[in-house]
Amino acid sequence: MNALRTDLYEIRMAVSFLRRGMTGRATFSLFARNLPPGRGFLVAAGLDDALAALHGFRFEPEELAYLRESTGLPAADVEALSLLRFTGDVRAVPEGRVVFAGEPLLEVTAPLPEAQLVETVLLNTTTFATAIATKAARCRLAAPDAELIDFSARRTHGATAALASARLTALAGFSSTSNVEGAFRHGLRAAGTMAHSYVQAFPSEADAFRAFAEDFPASPVFLVDTVDPVSGIAHAIDVARELGLPPANVGVRLDSGDLLELSRTARRMLDDAGLSRARVMASGGLDEYELARLTAAGAPIDAYGVGTAVGVSADAPALDTAYKLVEYDGRPVLKLSTGKRTLPGAKQVYRVPDCGPDVLALAAEPVLRGEALLVPVMLSGLRTDRWDLAAARDRLARDLAWLPPSARRLRGPRPVGVRRSAALSCLADEVAARTALSRQPALVR
Amino acid sequence: MNALRTDLYEIRMAVSFLRRGMTGRATFSLFARNLPPGRGFLVAAGLDDALAALHGFRFEPEELAYLRESTGLPAADVEALSLLRFTGDVRAVPEGRVVFAGEPLLEVTAPLPEAQLVETVLLNTTTFATAIATKAARCRLAAPDAELIDFSARRTHGATAALASARLTALAGFSSTSNVEGAFRHGLRAAGTMAHSYVQAFPSEADAFRAFAEDFPASPVFLVDTVDPVSGIAHAIDVARELGLPPANVGVRLDSGDLLELSRTARRMLDDAGLSRARVMASGGLDEYELARLTAAGAPIDAYGVGTAVGVSADAPALDTAYKLVEYDGRPVLKLSTGKRTLPGAKQVYRVPDCGPDVLALAAEPVLRGEALLVPVMLSGLRTDRWDLAAARDRLARDLAWLPPSARRLRGPRPVGVRRSAALSCLADEVAARTALSRQPALVR
Repeated sequence: MNALRTDLYEIRMAVSFLRRGMTGRATFSLFARNLPPGRGFLVAAGLDDALAALHGFRFEPEELAYLRESTGLPAADVEALSLLRFTGDVRAVPEGRVVFAGEPLLEVTAPLPEAQLVETVLLNTTTFATAIATKAARCRLAAPDAELIDFSARRTHGATAALASARLTALAGFSSTSNVEGAFRHGLRAAGTMAHSYVQAFPSEADAFRAFAEDFPASPVFLVDTVDPVSGIAHAIDVARELGLPPANVGVRLDSGDLLELSRTARRMLDDAGLSRARVMASGGLDEYELARLTAAGAPIDAYGVGTAVGVSADAPALDTAYKLVEYDGRPVLKLSTGKRTLPGAKQVYRVPDCGPDVLALAAEPVLRGEALLVPVMLSGLRTDRWDLAAARDRLARDLAWLPPSARRLRGPRPVGVRRSAALSCLADEVAARTALSRQPALVR
Repeated sequence: MNALRTDLYEIRMAVSFLRRGMTGRATFSLFARNLPPGRGFLVAAGLDDALAALHGFRFEPEELAYLRESTGLPAADVEALSLLRFTGDVRAVPEGRVVFAGEPLLEVTAPLPEAQLVETVLLNTTTFATAIATKAARCRLAAPDAELIDFSARRTHGATAALASARLTALAGFSSTSNVEGAFRHGLRAAGTMAHSYVQAFPSEADAFRAFAEDFPASPVFLVDTVDPVSGIAHAIDVARELGLPPANVGVRLDSGDLLELSRTARRMLDDAGLSRARVMASGGLDEYELARLTAAGAPIDAYGVGTAVGVSADAPALDTAYKLVEYDGRPVLKLSTGKRTLPGAKQVYRVPDCGPDVLALAAEPVLRGEALLVPVMLSGLRTDRWDLAAARDRLARDLAWLPPSARRLRGPRPVGVRRSAALSCLADEVAARTALSRQPALVR
């Protein structure tokens, strides 16, 4: 499975390497070249899916038949591909850790054809997940004391993206998800209220609220804006009193209009009715900026449903990630492409506790001061990690607490710096000089 | 399958409806409330996946067990859910047609619980696909004479999104995709060149080019910017001459730097070397704006690889879509929520050939002038359409040709207007007045 989930050029390159016996060990480094505008940090994520893809890597018979028939690969090449499994090692930053531009999210060391073929799937799983987890963490920072609920399932990029979003928002500290399959698959709490259609299907809003409270007395959250939010809140109060609902069970959801003003109105009306323990919930196009605005204004909102903005990471739906060869057969390499120059050699990132810059170093250097971020997660194709949502959530909470306010703020953040070790700088200069030499024959033409 | 791919509130509402025998026929309308900034039109897409989800709709035994155990639904409710299939009708705008804000992409008419439960999956499939297809169509408009290749697989939101992107870019007229699984599953042409790592793994760039040309003599496209693009082009020319490659087979790919300037250099160097039939290809963070800039400047680029920007619809990764109850049990309904007011009744959209505004009318109205956009695609749960990529591509090409330049332009477009029929306006006023009345009891408190 998974092996055909790749770009054709990976297969062509792998075939060429195999034909030529270029199966020496290669190290590729996967990192974000830069942070999207407005981001002060990234939250490493997607490793579990990435490792699952490596572990299951193989071409299935129908895929091999396709390669032979449709892309015109000779039978001998297809045979060679059929034997490939991922037998390499992976070092990675555990999910939930905060990282910055240029810091490897993971490094793969494997025979060159294997390491090359998995480029596409590794980029895909980590880029997407890191973008979503980062957005979710920003939402969490924006409303630190409110409950956050993942409402993204309806507008993610497909159902598997919705499943991922449920998991990634949980990693960032969301309490629950509207996505039932996501809750089922990832052991999360499912949450849900009612839609406008529920209210519309009854003769009146009060009838709808009464029916809902009768059917779900444990947690009736009334969507109050189908007709008019103020009358909706009043109807919710009427029904709560009429049925004698325990106030702590009751909630109202605001989904349109001025959420600050309406939440104050809702809070006041509920309090005046003796329902001070009833909860006010808000939803509708929310993102971290709106959460921060409402939080700063002291909006009395207990829970937010955050959907599309987090599920697609609306203002940064992708990251400028790269998967670059840094060493082949013991030889450190780089590329010099304009604006996309890379650094040679397998790396390690050291973080110092006092918020100084991270240090990007060669993996082979003597251990520097600070905590090493990349840890072994796969050896000879076998996973040595174990996915643990609670542990990832704790890592993220710790790293967010560690982040200086200048990097944590939502607008105009300044990421923590990353400086290169002397040994890395030295090697980079040396390899760059050697690589640049190779263009001379052409330049003198 | 698929039934658990929903928001918990859909299940709660369906359970409540089933308990109360509220199984009358309901019509829901799915539409974009507005166009994202900078969009002059949308390309309807995702219908094939949406209908597949409806056709396969059912709760599996393990899902039912989950609902009983984890969400606390009584056994009788779970039993009722287990019997549900989608038995309704769907009318939809065929994939590839151009639509505007407020125009239904599809309308579902089914027993209320069924129609409610499928909300999440219908929104998800159509929103995502329509966003991507629209972005792809904009790329197609931006470079009308160049070949476009889908390079998005590495940064879409998961592997299924990559599959979808391959199909949706093909719908918009892209020639091929780098995504091998996408090509396999959707019968598309796979395309691919080489990565920088290929060049880096050889002792020199010329060695790498020679090896690649030997292994893939039918279509050697050389990535020339690993060291220096000008020397890279020179190496490509050297190898093409040395191996006597047919010039029409040869290509160079530029992936960084000033693509306008470099493409001119590449064209001149190739022409001077007698390789005037060799092709120049460009890639690297391209979107419709960059394609338009290069096209307007007359960049001699034959083919573009367009990746992340189209695969995540980077500047509009989601659409403000809604799935709203418009009629229940013969009674037209709406909601009055601030900024999100809806229109009652099942609808039809009529398009007049002279580029006048579309007309949004009631489905029950006598047929108006123009072409009806919504057609039956599912009757009693059975599909009556057949997915046909070539037909969808033709529809889009025709609709793009029909679009007035003011709606088609990339920057500051003005969408074609949508006006309401007199009968729809009249019904909307009437239902709004009746609905507003229902808040009176609360307002006089």
